[in-house]
Amino acid sequence: MIRNKLILMMVATLLVFSGSSSIAADEKVIKWKLAMTWPAGLPPFAWTVTRFADNVEAMSGGRMTIRVDDKNKHKAALGILDMVKAGQYEMGHSASYYWKGKDINTMPFTTMPFGMTTSEQDAWYFYGGGEALAKEVFDKHGVNQYQGGSTGNQMGGWFRKEINSVDDLKGLKMRIPGFAGEVLAELGVAVTNLPAGELYTALERGTIDALEWVGPGMDINMGFHKVAPYYYTGWHEPATDLQFLINQDAWNELPADLQAIIEVAMVDSKARMYWENFAMSAEAWSKMGVDYPNIKVRTFPPEVIAEMKAVNARLIAETSARDPMFKKIMESQAEFMAKAREWTKMSDYLYLKDNIE
Amino acid sequence: MIRNKLILMMVATLLVFSGSSSIAADEKVIKWKLAMTWPAGLPPFAWTVTRFADNVEAMSGGRMTIRVDDKNKHKAALGILDMVKAGQYEMGHSASYYWKGKDINTMPFTTMPFGMTTSEQDAWYFYGGGEALAKEVFDKHGVNQYQGGSTGNQMGGWFRKEINSVDDLKGLKMRIPGFAGEVLAELGVAVTNLPAGELYTALERGTIDALEWVGPGMDINMGFHKVAPYYYTGWHEPATDLQFLINQDAWNELPADLQAIIEVAMVDSKARMYWENFAMSAEAWSKMGVDYPNIKVRTFPPEVIAEMKAVNARLIAETSARDPMFKKIMESQAEFMAKAREWTKMSDYLYLKDNIE
Repeated sequence: MIRNKLILMMVATLLVFSGSSSIAADEKVIKWKLAMTWPAGLPPFAWTVTRFADNVEAMSGGRMTIRVDDKNKHKAALGILDMVKAGQYEMGHSASYYWKGKDINTMPFTTMPFGMTTSEQDAWYFYGGGEALAKEVFDKHGVNQYQGGSTGNQMGGWFRKEINSVDDLKGLKMRIPGFAGEVLAELGVAVTNLPAGELYTALERGTIDALEWVGPGMDINMGFHKVAPYYYTGWHEPATDLQFLINQDAWNELPADLQAIIEVAMVDSKARMYWENFAMSAEAWSKMGVDYPNIKVRTFPPEVIAEMKAVNARLIAETSARDPMFKKIMESQAEFMAKAREWTKMSDYLYLKDNIE
Repeated sequence: MIRNKLILMMVATLLVFSGSSSIAADEKVIKWKLAMTWPAGLPPFAWTVTRFADNVEAMSGGRMTIRVDDKNKHKAALGILDMVKAGQYEMGHSASYYWKGKDINTMPFTTMPFGMTTSEQDAWYFYGGGEALAKEVFDKHGVNQYQGGSTGNQMGGWFRKEINSVDDLKGLKMRIPGFAGEVLAELGVAVTNLPAGELYTALERGTIDALEWVGPGMDINMGFHKVAPYYYTGWHEPATDLQFLINQDAWNELPADLQAIIEVAMVDSKARMYWENFAMSAEAWSKMGVDYPNIKVRTFPPEVIAEMKAVNARLIAETSARDPMFKKIMESQAEFMAKAREWTKMSDYLYLKDNIE
């Protein structure tokens, strides 16, 4: 009887511990791996991902950990979709327009040239039908897709030479992903995509003549201005969203509370990256004139913009004619944008106009 | 020995259950109460709060529940700070400019007339020093303050009569909270604040001649246009943020994982309210001309705006001279806004200008 009482006390003790936030000795920790496109430590992209992993661990009281592998570890910066699809990684973090060659319909969830601004696109995605369309596209790949951070409006890129006409674009070798790459290819640009870690070397060695990356907050640290001093304002990525991917089999095995933790932590990542990148860009932009006086800020001439717009509209129409899903996404975006832009105009735009000019 | 083995099997069984997401039989559920300023069911304010409570319950696997009381239950729509401070409620959801009479320094964390836009203010709050200043202010009240949702740029309000000059403002009875109320009081307006549930009746009965509430998404359902058809664009609340409050004693008793769950769930609420309200406003605005043709959209004349701006700057200077903490917050906001506005101008504003006009 004494031994039985001892064992019952052990039971009670163990149950008390199981009620606390620490892990009971034999409780299985769920260990996931996440592959990201970005180099380790790159603010705010890599920071966003490590903050997400830290949040999940803290919120689950250590019941779940997510190991973050950067592109030097997995060696496939632009292959995140494939690795998550194959189950090599349970999660990924990347930009879905990197897979336009594999499935053009993954692309519009990043951004579209002359498309919605950040506020407009976020409203569309979360409360205007975007999320359901994304599910339709990514279900075919066996992965769940979630928003994973916004850069906001991106700058048009760094050029060695000034662009004064559409002719100046012809023969230019430029790193530019997404639908903007398709548009520039039509205008004679030799378009390529390279991951972050290869950009500066490619520009310095002349493998490319121009590139776009993100905006002042992220670009200045990359040193592009040393090689290509013409810095153009944006037209092509008004609301770039990055994405989390989750392998559906791995997802379905998670208990409901960990699914809820992951879903909410991803919204935190999505929102915070935008705020952080905005602060970084405001800071960098304010110092640019003083610290980097050789940077020459330019806006593409109206006739170049007009030509880009015309080509963009034509390519959307052509791709829509070939691909019903693309058509469906484009129509959803266009319909929402028409309404959203009127509201933007009456609210933020009018307010800024009164307080800027 | 057989009995011992049986007991050991029971231990093992119980431990397996404790590792799952369900609540062990003897585990104590932490039950909190939250008082919100808003009527139950009001989109997107009340929705944001109930979604938050649902998230916390789901993420904690039921270990924590938060009961949401609306203003009809606690009868103190504008008294949330006091109730949370006193520990009557562990949490609250409100707008901190409602307490300007109690502590003027709670106010600038909601919005300031002619101040930062939503992107600018979010970047300032989370990555530009705002959060630390808010902590300094709210620590004095024994409560933690967190962002709890943004409405974005608000409309200037509903007026029975057109405002053609500063003189037209004199003697006007208007519901308008925050620093904008202080500004209009200087211009001869009889300023009051009323909670959401009392607005329509006050306007209909002539207790007030004008009011501002939020924007088309929320305003149209309130029916203000039936009584006051002049709908003015905004100057006074370019980035209204709502707030969660948490009693510090209650907070300190929570285990670390539940603290992490609450903190991340609040960021989800903060971000989603903005997206949802933007979508609601885009939708409402697009229907306004057709469904409510009697609404007359107006912008305050430049000389009225100029006078408001001058009074706003004078009141900020006067209040700063009296209150070092107010001065510190105003300087932090002004310094960040100067940098942020330049970036807004080069990014979203320039992009919109090219694509609107």
